[in-house]
Amino acid sequence: MNIREITVTPVAFRDPPLLNAAGVHEPWALRTIVEVTTDEGLTGLGETYGDLGHLTKVREAAAALIGLDIYQQNQIYHRITTVVGDAVSDLHGLTGVATKEKSIDRVYSPFEVACLDIQGKAIGRPVSDLFGGAVRDAVPYSAYLFYKWPGHPDSPDDRFGPALTPEGIVTQARLLIDEYGFQSIKLKGGVYPPDQEIDAILALREAFPTHPLRLDPNAVWSVETSIRVAQALDGTLEYLEDPTSGIPGMAAVAAEAPMPLATNMCVVTHDHLPPAIAQRAIGVLLSDHHYWGGLTRSVQLARLCETFGIAVSMHSNSHLGISLAAMTHLAAAVPHVTTACDTHTPWQDGQDVIAPGTLRFVNGAVPVPTTPGLGIELDHDALATMHEQYLKCGLTVRDDTTYIRRFDPTFPTTRPRW
Amino acid sequence: MNIREITVTPVAFRDPPLLNAAGVHEPWALRTIVEVTTDEGLTGLGETYGDLGHLTKVREAAAALIGLDIYQQNQIYHRITTVVGDAVSDLHGLTGVATKEKSIDRVYSPFEVACLDIQGKAIGRPVSDLFGGAVRDAVPYSAYLFYKWPGHPDSPDDRFGPALTPEGIVTQARLLIDEYGFQSIKLKGGVYPPDQEIDAILALREAFPTHPLRLDPNAVWSVETSIRVAQALDGTLEYLEDPTSGIPGMAAVAAEAPMPLATNMCVVTHDHLPPAIAQRAIGVLLSDHHYWGGLTRSVQLARLCETFGIAVSMHSNSHLGISLAAMTHLAAAVPHVTTACDTHTPWQDGQDVIAPGTLRFVNGAVPVPTTPGLGIELDHDALATMHEQYLKCGLTVRDDTTYIRRFDPTFPTTRPRW
Ligand SMILES: [Mg+2]
Ligand SMILES: [Mg+2]
Repeated sequence: MNIREITVTPVAFRDPPLLNAAGVHEPWALRTIVEVTTDEGLTGLGETYGDLGHLTKVREAAAALIGLDIYQQNQIYHRITTVVGDAVSDLHGLTGVATKEKSIDRVYSPFEVACLDIQGKAIGRPVSDLFGGAVRDAVPYSAYLFYKWPGHPDSPDDRFGPALTPEGIVTQARLLIDEYGFQSIKLKGGVYPPDQEIDAILALREAFPTHPLRLDPNAVWSVETSIRVAQALDGTLEYLEDPTSGIPGMAAVAAEAPMPLATNMCVVTHDHLPPAIAQRAIGVLLSDHHYWGGLTRSVQLARLCETFGIAVSMHSNSHLGISLAAMTHLAAAVPHVTTACDTHTPWQDGQDVIAPGTLRFVNGAVPVPTTPGLGIELDHDALATMHEQYLKCGLTVRDDTTYIRRFDPTFPTTRPRW
Repeated sequence: MNIREITVTPVAFRDPPLLNAAGVHEPWALRTIVEVTTDEGLTGLGETYGDLGHLTKVREAAAALIGLDIYQQNQIYHRITTVVGDAVSDLHGLTGVATKEKSIDRVYSPFEVACLDIQGKAIGRPVSDLFGGAVRDAVPYSAYLFYKWPGHPDSPDDRFGPALTPEGIVTQARLLIDEYGFQSIKLKGGVYPPDQEIDAILALREAFPTHPLRLDPNAVWSVETSIRVAQALDGTLEYLEDPTSGIPGMAAVAAEAPMPLATNMCVVTHDHLPPAIAQRAIGVLLSDHHYWGGLTRSVQLARLCETFGIAVSMHSNSHLGISLAAMTHLAAAVPHVTTACDTHTPWQDGQDVIAPGTLRFVNGAVPVPTTPGLGIELDHDALATMHEQYLKCGLTVRDDTTYIRRFDPTFPTTRPRW
């Protein structure tokens, strides 16, 4: 079953002004949609980042894969290794350092997912069955809260409104939980001085006494600040995510923190696992099939973590439905993923490249699709519209820092900030 | 595609008097053959140990799996976990300590292999394609040499003849290499005082100047003896296998040995990996899908080893063609398996439960089957004959020590022996 054609389409969708340690989300989020078609006419879908350097490599890889068998994943991976070469491409810094292996894994991922979608369709099975079958009927996700402006500057307020205080964060949490039923809450921090973010977590605890809570300042704190925050939130956080940068720093915090530390920044490729494990730097790995080389490699990663007593959950960047479907099949089939995963789905606010209907939230969890493959279908009209948006929006890379500096020219990128 | 029937058949085949640290192989080797049939009439094959305690658990598991879908491996594994319970069954001590997880993995393995055989047949693909496709056309195996008696006591000499001296070992190596074309050589040691085994290795080096050489005394040496042998064989051995027992002992040897240490004894389940890695005890893991929980889990294990810079090869006990097919598909699909694997195939001397033709050796390597599933077929007549042999031979467990003591009542089991 050979690859006859691969269509690579960059898309843009509206994104609210979500604040983080690097700045603020621009008005458009970029993604790349990969459609693989075989000589037998089966199609599979993958989704990845939209940043231009990465998009260029994905397009080169697509050209290099024509004619290959969708089952020969070792060969496909090797071909992509050749295409990527020594080009270590970086994205925004929110997913940790760039490495050569990570660059390869990131380019490979959407093709692997698309091939698995096809494999599932070919045998009439959901993708989760390619990994031993779903061990849960639905995959729980967390309410992913952001400090945010009421709307983009010079635009009307968006429907989510402002969240610039602990009260604003609680209001946002209520909105997301009302709409999606989330049972866990994550706050993206690193925006305000740590004491204000501690107050936000305490306000969430008061408003939602039983929801597990997480805080992620994207490594803008010093070791000392991280330890102080961790101790202040003793008994309140399920885990503290990337308080500080680097494996040694995280290890120093982990030794003093009363809760586990999670990461999607200091361990982002296989090379980071031995030192992180040796130094006991992390208790939770937030895996992400978009840069850990697709679903099969993510399952292998989860097994490695299980062996070393490291919990596994999932990281998310702004994404569309293809990624949500892939994440859901993956988390469903890995017994070791036992806590809620992250998703940006609420911020997508109904925009998608896939036809509505398959993916929905029930009590904060996405029921695992049971139809063949990923269980989703491309909406070609929506894809065309979102590709038009990509062409018109003028963005080709995500750059939260440059955008925030248009409004706050002194916005700092020094690390640690606090 | 649900399991309609599982047939579990213990078999026995003639085995030469191969010497090892535990004693000598009895005249019959025992295996268990598992045949899974689905409601659609597809069949799949698995092979495992024949020891009675294990066979009993395999039979219980077989009964518990009727009606399950062959893709629901997570469910099948969980069901077997329940069947095995806390029963930690041990085999002969040559594959390391028994643990609960290892007992479960060992019972699970033949069912997983059989289900993968069926999955491959269902999609018209070799099993290697279920793991990303073969990265090599043929899987190299090593010439597995044993000290041996000329024949079993009170029986005529077998065609392999005696191997009780360095010269005898070289003669045996020539025979196996002439017949199979092996490009690597492994000597099972732990039989004679270490200096004699050093001499055997040096004789092999002289006779076969370019074949990688390995020596495996099954952990009967002290740390001091192990270091002395390792240093005496500096530049001669590709790796030294299980010179001494336990992770701390292996680590002490590894710190002084000029070559990597390999194991199929001190790391035999996931619990052993963290301490072995932390203590730098091993350089090569000899994986074995029969006790590492089947092929999928062995692929995951190989990935873990790759992450930690540990080479992967494969261990073997006396086996038949189903196991050889499974090992070949597995090694073919894992890029990280780059050295020759072990096999007992020559000692099987043509006896098999599978129809001849698919599996053959070319220059010491088995060409990877390209037909659907494992690519082999059960020979029902041969299976019946070998089951008869099982019933008549009177053996129900492998016990090399009791057998050798019939002829050498003072045979010691003290460890370390040297
Ligand atoms: Mg994060
Ligand atoms: Mg061994």
